[in-house]
Amino acid sequence: MIKPNMHYAELKDAYLFYNIAQKTKRYLEEHPGQRLLRLGIGDVSLPLCPAVIKALHEAVEDQSQQERFHGYMPEPGAPFLRHDVAEYYRKRNIDITDDEVFISSGASDELGDILDLFDSNGSSLIMEPAYPAYVDANVIEGRRIIHVPSSRENSFIPMPDEPADLIYLCSPNNPTGAVFTKEQLKVWVDFANEHDSVILFDAAYEAFIEDPSLPRSIFEIDGARTCAIEICSLSKTAGFTGTRLGYTIIPTQLERYDMSLHDMWIRNRTTKTNGISYILQKGGAAVFSEEGQRQIQENLHVYKNNAKVIMKALDEADIWYTGGKNAPYIWMECPNNMDSWTFFDTLLNEIQVVGTPGSGFGSCGEKYFRFSSFGNPEDTQEAATRLATLLKRL
Amino acid sequence: MIKPNMHYAELKDAYLFYNIAQKTKRYLEEHPGQRLLRLGIGDVSLPLCPAVIKALHEAVEDQSQQERFHGYMPEPGAPFLRHDVAEYYRKRNIDITDDEVFISSGASDELGDILDLFDSNGSSLIMEPAYPAYVDANVIEGRRIIHVPSSRENSFIPMPDEPADLIYLCSPNNPTGAVFTKEQLKVWVDFANEHDSVILFDAAYEAFIEDPSLPRSIFEIDGARTCAIEICSLSKTAGFTGTRLGYTIIPTQLERYDMSLHDMWIRNRTTKTNGISYILQKGGAAVFSEEGQRQIQENLHVYKNNAKVIMKALDEADIWYTGGKNAPYIWMECPNNMDSWTFFDTLLNEIQVVGTPGSGFGSCGEKYFRFSSFGNPEDTQEAATRLATLLKRL
Repeated sequence: MIKPNMHYAELKDAYLFYNIAQKTKRYLEEHPGQRLLRLGIGDVSLPLCPAVIKALHEAVEDQSQQERFHGYMPEPGAPFLRHDVAEYYRKRNIDITDDEVFISSGASDELGDILDLFDSNGSSLIMEPAYPAYVDANVIEGRRIIHVPSSRENSFIPMPDEPADLIYLCSPNNPTGAVFTKEQLKVWVDFANEHDSVILFDAAYEAFIEDPSLPRSIFEIDGARTCAIEICSLSKTAGFTGTRLGYTIIPTQLERYDMSLHDMWIRNRTTKTNGISYILQKGGAAVFSEEGQRQIQENLHVYKNNAKVIMKALDEADIWYTGGKNAPYIWMECPNNMDSWTFFDTLLNEIQVVGTPGSGFGSCGEKYFRFSSFGNPEDTQEAATRLATLLKRL
Repeated sequence: MIKPNMHYAELKDAYLFYNIAQKTKRYLEEHPGQRLLRLGIGDVSLPLCPAVIKALHEAVEDQSQQERFHGYMPEPGAPFLRHDVAEYYRKRNIDITDDEVFISSGASDELGDILDLFDSNGSSLIMEPAYPAYVDANVIEGRRIIHVPSSRENSFIPMPDEPADLIYLCSPNNPTGAVFTKEQLKVWVDFANEHDSVILFDAAYEAFIEDPSLPRSIFEIDGARTCAIEICSLSKTAGFTGTRLGYTIIPTQLERYDMSLHDMWIRNRTTKTNGISYILQKGGAAVFSEEGQRQIQENLHVYKNNAKVIMKALDEADIWYTGGKNAPYIWMECPNNMDSWTFFDTLLNEIQVVGTPGSGFGSCGEKYFRFSSFGNPEDTQEAATRLATLLKRL
């Protein structure tokens, strides 16, 4: 009998978002006509910007014309988009060549697929609280997971201790919004080079960094080219959550056991894909145009303002939190030593605000709570007003 | 030091299409101004049909409007498209439920990813000649490959012999164009059930089947629901090679070791993807509309006619071949016992026609040659005329 991948049996049930959905559904059934203010979702609320829409329409039109029709695309990505992404780095004086850029269907797809490059008998270090899929993808592969908890004591910025084969870093962080400084990231890069580890750097939220002293790419750090892969996405940068597009940087000199991870990834993509949609790649290229960059900044500004509105409410109540600055997430300590789900229920029942319990991102997230700045501005303002009033009362 | 997946070192270099590209490039350099007639590519040449273009434009427009904007899509696929695909089966009296349909980025992506469901210590049976990615994806996983050669003696339709955990079947076949009858496929299904194997049925070319007695889905065969996964694509059916979209059918009762492969795949997709592009799924849904079905048949008719034109030339020269009927590929025996690359060179140099050497699909493809019907009709006609003349002369 064929044996399934038995590691699936080791996966914990994904209760977090399911439980949130169940609880909000029940609340609405019991309180018909009530409207919930949703600050829980990681999804964006603003539509694609006009430059992207125009490019997508043009690309669709190309697919309707024999002379302009595009069939199979090169598996590592369309040369025009690989070039645009590399330029996006080079404009910031980060030396990335076009062929170090791989176009993907998005960061979550790539974070799952990239494990193909490594022996599954290795270990993976995951900073927690963490995006749950990091853990699950490694459980499916049967990799040993080294959970590295973080806490208020280190401002949710853990530093290296136990060596690991693969190291997941996410900065700005989901869920905590914490951002590595260059000095902190340098310690991780040196640690990875010393132990010949590979860092998977999830830069999905890089566009939220406003402080020019903070690194938006791990390749701003000396030594990263021999130890890091950067995985990025247009989901949060340009509202592509439902449109799908991302990119991955694998330096040509990243080698282990004399094998080029860059060349292995080309081979993986040519074997396991037939390239990314021409239409989506044209839409993605528009994000990197001058007009596109200006327009996405307008959208990012709305989200950044949402974060400010939430932070103001927390500041008034003297609540400790990370994120909000240079990050779309705000990670707050629950008031009165409340646990995460009790605070969730309180917000839902008392002020009809939905957020995300921190315990869903790992046990060290207990007694913390995540707000997202991706919501509707009016709802976010109203939620913040109610939150400020509630926190004074609790 | 982190250990890469060392199986990559066992991959053979992918010479086939590279060599074709090099040889044609050299020919054109030596013969400036010559035009080549390309019957080698597996890519389509006709643009997307109007119904799909209209749906894509509308979906792009949705992404521009706050009220109609779509963020993250459900990971197994948009309910509207899962329903349309299931209906496509149900209209042919194949009992597939909506939730047995998974939307994918295409068949090649899914054929690579689906291996995640199985223990990598198992064996994979691959009928040869075969699509090279079947072999490579299994080499990357370190699975034991059982190569099952086919030949003119069995009309390139091999029947089961040695048991295997995973069984790859492709019908209509790439590269041979051979199509299983229901009776032949039933033997494979019974064999898989007897040995508790799982069949991966690649149905990418099902839309080319005209003979109503031939199975277009493995789920037309009794017993398939307990042993088969069907992987399909809109690439050849509707010209989506560069637009990307596919679907996979996993029956709810497909279980091994008491684990539901259907439920495991939901968990895989929610972990390793964030769903497929809303825009592409809307375009895909248009393929299944009444108008879309009529329009894609017009395109398929062009390709089917190309196949007839090539077959006529081969028939006149009394050349043995499979495919062409109910399949977009024609798999011919090279004349005069020529080997595949010699025939390739002869066609290129003598009549400026580019095809695909059969030896590139496995050693049992030596002395065979593949023509594709996806080319331009005028070029195909001209190539067939020159081919008929050449074959008389050889």
